[in-house]
Amino acid sequence: MKPYIHIVRYYECDRMGITHHSNYIRFMEEARLDWMDQMGFGFERMEAEGVVSPVVEIACRYKHPTTFKDAIRIEVSVIELSAIKIRIAYNMYMGDTLVCTAESLHCFLENGRPVRLQERFPDFYEALCRQLTEAK
Amino acid sequence: MKPYIHIVRYYECDRMGITHHSNYIRFMEEARLDWMDQMGFGFERMEAEGVVSPVVEIACRYKHPTTFKDAIRIEVSVIELSAIKIRIAYNMYMGDTLVCTAESLHCFLENGRPVRLQERFPDFYEALCRQLTEAK
Amino acid sequence: MKPYIHIVRYYECDRMGITHHSNYIRFMEEARLDWMDQMGFGFERMEAEGVVSPVVEIACRYKHPTTFKDAIRIEVSVIELSAIKIRIAYNMYMGDTLVCTAESLHCFLENGRPVRLQERFPDFYEALCRQLTEAK
Amino acid sequence: MKPYIHIVRYYECDRMGITHHSNYIRFMEEARLDWMDQMGFGFERMEAEGVVSPVVEIACRYKHPTTFKDAIRIEVSVIELSAIKIRIAYNMYMGDTLVCTAESLHCFLENGRPVRLQERFPDFYEALCRQLTEAK
Repeated sequence: MKPYIHIVRYYECDRMGITHHSNYIRFMEEARLDWMDQMGFGFERMEAEGVVSPVVEIACRYKHPTTFKDAIRIEVSVIELSAIKIRIAYNMYMGDTLVCTAESLHCFLENGRPVRLQERFPDFYEALCRQLTEAK
Repeated sequence: MKPYIHIVRYYECDRMGITHHSNYIRFMEEARLDWMDQMGFGFERMEAEGVVSPVVEIACRYKHPTTFKDAIRIEVSVIELSAIKIRIAYNMYMGDTLVCTAESLHCFLENGRPVRLQERFPDFYEALCRQLTEAK
Repeated sequence: MKPYIHIVRYYECDRMGITHHSNYIRFMEEARLDWMDQMGFGFERMEAEGVVSPVVEIACRYKHPTTFKDAIRIEVSVIELSAIKIRIAYNMYMGDTLVCTAESLHCFLENGRPVRLQERFPDFYEALCRQLTEAK
Repeated sequence: MKPYIHIVRYYECDRMGITHHSNYIRFMEEARLDWMDQMGFGFERMEAEGVVSPVVEIACRYKHPTTFKDAIRIEVSVIELSAIKIRIAYNMYMGDTLVCTAESLHCFLENGRPVRLQERFPDFYEALCRQLTEAK
């Protein structure tokens, strides 16, 4: 899997001159959707099938500030997988410097009800399992 | 009509320490939706009926910078009305200082096709006409 | 302390029709800065003295979706206080429904170096201690 | 000059499912700063020298909606140049479809006072003149 690169925009920086912390949550989404694309399960395909994936939890630890023009390299990996939830980890680097580590927890919903990934998207589920195993 | 007040948020300010110019476009939307509410035609009611109102044009002249905690008072008025389009003007003040003047042009769409306001929402159309006349 | 109210804006909602999860991080900031104001220690006063307060950690659990026009009531409280760090908790409600719980961890920096709150802002530190005690 | 490409993010789309109109103002900034880089006059270099460049006016005509994953190609050109102001035009395409045309007017400030580009950044001024002539 290719890491995702986000170049910090001018408008993403705040009065302190650094990337506003809320934007990292958006970078996580960008990286996650890119990672799903790379796995062959683009989110817009799910949406077209009527499945949405709300975020259940977010955690973010800011290690080092970034600013305008910095290239943030984001490595995404699945770290937990249950019948209806998936936990994803993010390591964000600027060169060799770890600038942020984060996690997000997701479920999948169809008509407002939880979707069992293994049944609804078995190929995606297997790909996630494989990635999880390889990581261990 | 009561003017709309937007208090500038910390995250709306940029590296120059001032409200990022793109945010005024959002303040315009806030003020416009509040103004529609005051006229009794909330945008969420239109949306519920399947009518959306995309922005066709925007123009914005920045007169004076604002920053964190500034209270921007926005006066909204209709300045042009045709069968399918409506042009709205915004005067934004901080105390007595004019900080920004702006305009937006809108159409209304139902199933992707232009809606004739006068037929689809006659009460709203009349209220707009009245406002337009009073302004002259 | 008066809870902070955030009315969800149209532009804060995403393609799923709900408030985009990244915006809650911004609501936390709004509520936190309002809470500091209510304690008499406005952030812009600290900034004027050359002290900034970067966010060190964020955690957010989304319980219930919100959308355009929803009024989110945010209760802020300090839950941990050390020499150089402060942890703040947020309970966000819509009516009686808990929509989100969150935490943030902050330090204070002056010329890039950690500030000891107790020495630099003794009144603020004491007010925080008092709040912490009352909560227990 | 190479056109700038912006890929629309999920969080840039609104409840109507399309790119929120305020975001085009941000795409303009991205494209403009990239264009200044390509001309060899990066905005962060100006900022380092104490010169900032606030936006004075913005105008934007939305021709065609875009959404998540769309690649917007933005062509930037200078269309007016005076002693202290510069007007920039933007043509935004998705494939061959013109999705948005826009303009922005800028001044340059040093210590809060207008900067005469020709004196302060003569190389940049000449490069702008050259571009303006070539366009005619």
